[in-house]
Amino acid sequence: MTDFTFEVQAKHGMARAGVFHTPHGDLLTPLFAPVGTQGTVKAVTPDQLSGIEASLILANTYHLYLRPGDALVADLGGLHAFMAWERPILTDSGGFQVFSLAKIRKVDEKGVTFQSHIDGSTHRLTPEKSIAIQENLGADIIMAFDECADPYDRAYSELAMQRTHAWADRCLQAKTRPDQALFGIVQGGVFPDLRRQSAERIVALGFPGYAIGGLSVGETKREMHAILEVVTPLLPESKPRYLMGVGSPEDLVNGVLRGVDLFDCVLPTRLARHHAAMTRTGRLNLTNAGFASDPRPIEETCDCYTCQRFTRAYLRHLILSKEILASTLLSIHNLRILVRLMQDLRQAVFAGRVEAFAEDFFAYRQGDAGLEEPAAA
Amino acid sequence: MTDFTFEVQAKHGMARAGVFHTPHGDLLTPLFAPVGTQGTVKAVTPDQLSGIEASLILANTYHLYLRPGDALVADLGGLHAFMAWERPILTDSGGFQVFSLAKIRKVDEKGVTFQSHIDGSTHRLTPEKSIAIQENLGADIIMAFDECADPYDRAYSELAMQRTHAWADRCLQAKTRPDQALFGIVQGGVFPDLRRQSAERIVALGFPGYAIGGLSVGETKREMHAILEVVTPLLPESKPRYLMGVGSPEDLVNGVLRGVDLFDCVLPTRLARHHAAMTRTGRLNLTNAGFASDPRPIEETCDCYTCQRFTRAYLRHLILSKEILASTLLSIHNLRILVRLMQDLRQAVFAGRVEAFAEDFFAYRQGDAGLEEPAAA
Repeated sequence: MTDFTFEVQAKHGMARAGVFHTPHGDLLTPLFAPVGTQGTVKAVTPDQLSGIEASLILANTYHLYLRPGDALVADLGGLHAFMAWERPILTDSGGFQVFSLAKIRKVDEKGVTFQSHIDGSTHRLTPEKSIAIQENLGADIIMAFDECADPYDRAYSELAMQRTHAWADRCLQAKTRPDQALFGIVQGGVFPDLRRQSAERIVALGFPGYAIGGLSVGETKREMHAILEVVTPLLPESKPRYLMGVGSPEDLVNGVLRGVDLFDCVLPTRLARHHAAMTRTGRLNLTNAGFASDPRPIEETCDCYTCQRFTRAYLRHLILSKEILASTLLSIHNLRILVRLMQDLRQAVFAGRVEAFAEDFFAYRQGDAGLEEPAAA
Repeated sequence: MTDFTFEVQAKHGMARAGVFHTPHGDLLTPLFAPVGTQGTVKAVTPDQLSGIEASLILANTYHLYLRPGDALVADLGGLHAFMAWERPILTDSGGFQVFSLAKIRKVDEKGVTFQSHIDGSTHRLTPEKSIAIQENLGADIIMAFDECADPYDRAYSELAMQRTHAWADRCLQAKTRPDQALFGIVQGGVFPDLRRQSAERIVALGFPGYAIGGLSVGETKREMHAILEVVTPLLPESKPRYLMGVGSPEDLVNGVLRGVDLFDCVLPTRLARHHAAMTRTGRLNLTNAGFASDPRPIEETCDCYTCQRFTRAYLRHLILSKEILASTLLSIHNLRILVRLMQDLRQAVFAGRVEAFAEDFFAYRQGDAGLEEPAAA
């Protein structure tokens, strides 16, 4: 059995600094995982990901199952070899994408029948099938198959939660590979009592790590924080906690303050492909004419390749010229911003000053959607 | 005055190995220059270009004049700083693009009035203006402003050639920067007597390097070779010779055999964005289903990042998934193929075996458009 222990190295309030052992290396937490949906973090190479000090990459089971197929990936040596990423990988269960991207044909106690968003072909995912696919892909961390409900629909949230609990148990039974850590997922929508019930039930099953699912799907920030404050105290201290699909700088800081260790989100790379550069204080829309002759990097204090070599004026030129390099350079920067934010938060935990760090962070923060004026930037 | 001397280090037949000194470093010839039309070699970073051992990059005066504007580039420290490329750069004169991309309003003895292909605005390029723009951009090698004619239209070829000669003289007069080498361009279409006349006239003006223009625009390979065989013997031994816009592997080998030192072409990066991988023997169309589970790199013997890390199966998956990384990885490979071909030709010159090298090369070559069958690949 592979060593998947998690050591909490320091704590400050609920915030933790830790190390999670995996077959492809140690993960230092808290951390942000870039998303490589189809077996590539869009527009960046594995070398560039190493350059920004990314440690964990997420890939999507739903997408890779449909194309190129998990059996093919297994034949080619697994996902690490396929995408040439030698550090840890996490795959989700496919559940979230089935419920958000595919056309559902039928959900029953056994699983979900759905149509591919690519070619309309019919497929069926069950807890057992999700685990089999994830074993073919071969990630270090794999996820239990869950049902994602409308977080405001109490009756559906309760039903989906109960199904998620039954499926979590079946995932544990189905799992065969000793070199993969299967994480359980807490569901329950925006309802604190359901979340409490779900956390207790999932923890009782006993997983090497726990995820909080069904957030960042429409609920308010206040609701997200309330749920975290209910759930994380119920999760074991000695296991990593993963807040799925959450990744704005605000959310990362708020999550760490509430005891979360792992995050992932498409936000930084998606923003990059839409010409927005993330900063510590907000965002820059680089198409803005005010940046046309701006000789500064996106951020003076950023240590990424993009900021070390290129001006805002050049990046704006690439965007207006529809050059692919714009997506690459902005993705490198946006990912580095989040990776470094987590590195800084980790240091703040060791220094016992997470609250001061957060206070400082929010004092200068103009909001996730807050676009800086070029003149003031 | 900057040292722009060219040393012929070895010769074999007409083929030469040399070194050309520039303010941004020595260029070892023969060489292939990747094209960075808008101030970026499409889909690759400067670091990746260094990785494939690219030495000289070409950028287009017409494009950069229209957007972002040469004055802006000058304000930001010149093109080397703007695009973060520290090695030598060559800019063309804008002439070829004006005649191929823009809508011509008027050509007269003084210059060309044309409409921008971007927004239809009216502009005028003259020899003096072309030099002024190129001095703002600040490349190491700049080109005389020339008129490109239909190579089969004798009357127009003769007229354009004469205008090109007069403009070459005016470019020499207009030039002010001592740290740029201005190359003259030989024109004359497919007509040997015009080419001879043009070469003699341009050489008489005295340039630190000479280009052969107006080829690779529709003439046959046989005609291209015939023109090279007329022109290169008329060019001084002690100056570099540049065959503009030519860059298939066949053309590179044939050009070197006929005494050419420098080449540039959009072919490798354009093919990459259209899913074709260049090989020593032909091309692979990676969308072909036969590559779906192919565990091999594009070429077993290639030392590029792409071939060292990724399989044909993975590259095909990226292409079918419309991932940006496909363009990046194929561009890296295709450029490396040509850079390395030139490195090998250079070594063959030193070894006195260029003809054997070429014989071997053509024996296995299936033609530029020759697609390998996946099974046989």
